[in-house]
Amino acid sequence: MTAFEKELKTIIQRIKPLDPVWLSKARERTAQLLMPTRALGRLHDISEQICAIQKTLQPSIDRKAFVVMAGDHGVTAEGVSAYPQEVTGAMVRTFLIGGAGINVLAAQIEAEMIVVDMGVVSDLCFPELETGNRIFIHKTARGTSNLAQGPAMTRLQAAQSVYTGFQVATRLFEKGVQILGTGDMGIGNTTPAAAIGVVLCGSSPEAMTGRGTGVDDAGLGRKIKAVQNGLEINRPDPRDGLDVLSKVGGFEIGGIAGLVLAGAFHRRPVVIDGFISTAGALIAHSLCPGVMPYLLAGHCSKEPGHRLMLKHLGLAPILDLDMGLGEGSGGALAMNIIEGALRIFKNMLTFEQAGVSNKE
Amino acid sequence: MTAFEKELKTIIQRIKPLDPVWLSKARERTAQLLMPTRALGRLHDISEQICAIQKTLQPSIDRKAFVVMAGDHGVTAEGVSAYPQEVTGAMVRTFLIGGAGINVLAAQIEAEMIVVDMGVVSDLCFPELETGNRIFIHKTARGTSNLAQGPAMTRLQAAQSVYTGFQVATRLFEKGVQILGTGDMGIGNTTPAAAIGVVLCGSSPEAMTGRGTGVDDAGLGRKIKAVQNGLEINRPDPRDGLDVLSKVGGFEIGGIAGLVLAGAFHRRPVVIDGFISTAGALIAHSLCPGVMPYLLAGHCSKEPGHRLMLKHLGLAPILDLDMGLGEGSGGALAMNIIEGALRIFKNMLTFEQAGVSNKE
Repeated sequence: MTAFEKELKTIIQRIKPLDPVWLSKARERTAQLLMPTRALGRLHDISEQICAIQKTLQPSIDRKAFVVMAGDHGVTAEGVSAYPQEVTGAMVRTFLIGGAGINVLAAQIEAEMIVVDMGVVSDLCFPELETGNRIFIHKTARGTSNLAQGPAMTRLQAAQSVYTGFQVATRLFEKGVQILGTGDMGIGNTTPAAAIGVVLCGSSPEAMTGRGTGVDDAGLGRKIKAVQNGLEINRPDPRDGLDVLSKVGGFEIGGIAGLVLAGAFHRRPVVIDGFISTAGALIAHSLCPGVMPYLLAGHCSKEPGHRLMLKHLGLAPILDLDMGLGEGSGGALAMNIIEGALRIFKNMLTFEQAGVSNKE
Repeated sequence: MTAFEKELKTIIQRIKPLDPVWLSKARERTAQLLMPTRALGRLHDISEQICAIQKTLQPSIDRKAFVVMAGDHGVTAEGVSAYPQEVTGAMVRTFLIGGAGINVLAAQIEAEMIVVDMGVVSDLCFPELETGNRIFIHKTARGTSNLAQGPAMTRLQAAQSVYTGFQVATRLFEKGVQILGTGDMGIGNTTPAAAIGVVLCGSSPEAMTGRGTGVDDAGLGRKIKAVQNGLEINRPDPRDGLDVLSKVGGFEIGGIAGLVLAGAFHRRPVVIDGFISTAGALIAHSLCPGVMPYLLAGHCSKEPGHRLMLKHLGLAPILDLDMGLGEGSGGALAMNIIEGALRIFKNMLTFEQAGVSNKE
């Protein structure tokens, strides 16, 4: 076992379940609020989950951050994407300029945004931008190998990418970040995400594979074929998350799995985004099912396999708006709702405070 | 025809359809944004609708307001609610203190909030609160009559309540409000809302009637019976919205219908909330189908009939979070998403600006 794997093992052993005492304290408070029983539905589930994670009845997510994990994919050689591979690096540049979808939605909620080069092919050095420390370079390699023809990466690289994600999130939590959103950028990455979904959810490649950024019927056929070939050649072991990640995953997907582990380890809520982020969560869940109580699903994307993944994980998405951009966009938008849920929990009067009589 | 009805007729005649030129200009702009084709799904529909309403490619909803329409219901005598009638007035007091759900969610989006007494039984005079002009008193009457035994109100009162709502919204729009959320408060009001839904959507009382604030099985039976009796005794004419409102409606529901008419008349988007607000929208739609392009449905509530109403109106809800508080709470939460949609439309870079190549 490599040093990275040993570190991950230690981390996983220290992840604890939610404290049921704080959960029931939070539910008691909800029951006193000036409304019919749990009249705000899912908002109560969200606020109580965060109370239990933070062990408080004054939950706060004032300090929000998004980590966009970027990586390239050898499987693009199979013609699985509507965009050329250079777009990954070009989009990272746009994140640093501040003009992409996630920048706009993160600004709305006043969230910090960090980009991590987990394994982009091109050099991400933009001295003209003066972006300071908003990008971290942790190239595991310059893109994965083509998963349709062999393993996407080594087991060492898989463990390294997860550990890197864990470290990035840990640094943010130590700086005071209270809630973390996960994001992704990587041309071709719906193909490894679909392959992971097939292995870990037990679905068919046809049900799990969608059009991603918008491939045509022929492109969809090539994607399904790439997933099928990748699984046949590599035979990933569904009981071993690192094996699945190394055989058919991606560096940014490993990074996201690391973010998810870090949330559970440091007791901070993590909001996952769409299809790619949920593939990362599937890897994390496979390594440690105990991460689940610390997760929130920002939305259900239009990628058809996403609903299957969420169902497998038992996560109810907060939004369902036919979105499919990635980058963390669905999670960012959902944070407005999470913020609303916490405000309701903290700022609404109780029946007693308002002097209104409750139901007989 | 009364003076109120004549006024409404003039208003309705002056409601115009959306300008298709602005809609297609907005769609062109969306197509240039740095993302795969319409990758943010419903967000694009929302921003383009508001562009077309406001006739601009710089849509703005910086000035937001909520109007909570309050009224009491004679049908509470049938035992249709889990709460006593005094709670309507007590809740209005809480709105003015600022401690109810809608206050908390309106504060999150920095929206102004106005309460209108459309026909509450008790006197809503709280000199100790110094609330200034945040409540308007327009008592159509002190509560409606019991719709299960006769008409809820006169046709004159129905027209008056709609006209009052129109005037309240007009005043806000003239002050610069750019988007309006509708809200309601009225113990017993899911019963008239269900009756309106049955008449105007053609559903059965069983499918349209739910548990409201949480009545038990016996209470649900009494509600269904009240709706059935009300429809049998009053025989509202489904082609005549004012007849439906007068026979089985409520003053706050009429007020909401007036808010909806005003949005279309003044070309301002109106965000409806849950079951009661949508009953108001059904009345407005029945008076003038041309209001629809100016409406957004904030959410789908847990009241089972709400989904039927939205389907009848052809509205796709923005949120679906098992909420059922009313007050405008679902619309307020949805405004965060609408705000995000406009920010995406205005602030994202285009492919050209970012220097990224689009799909071949």
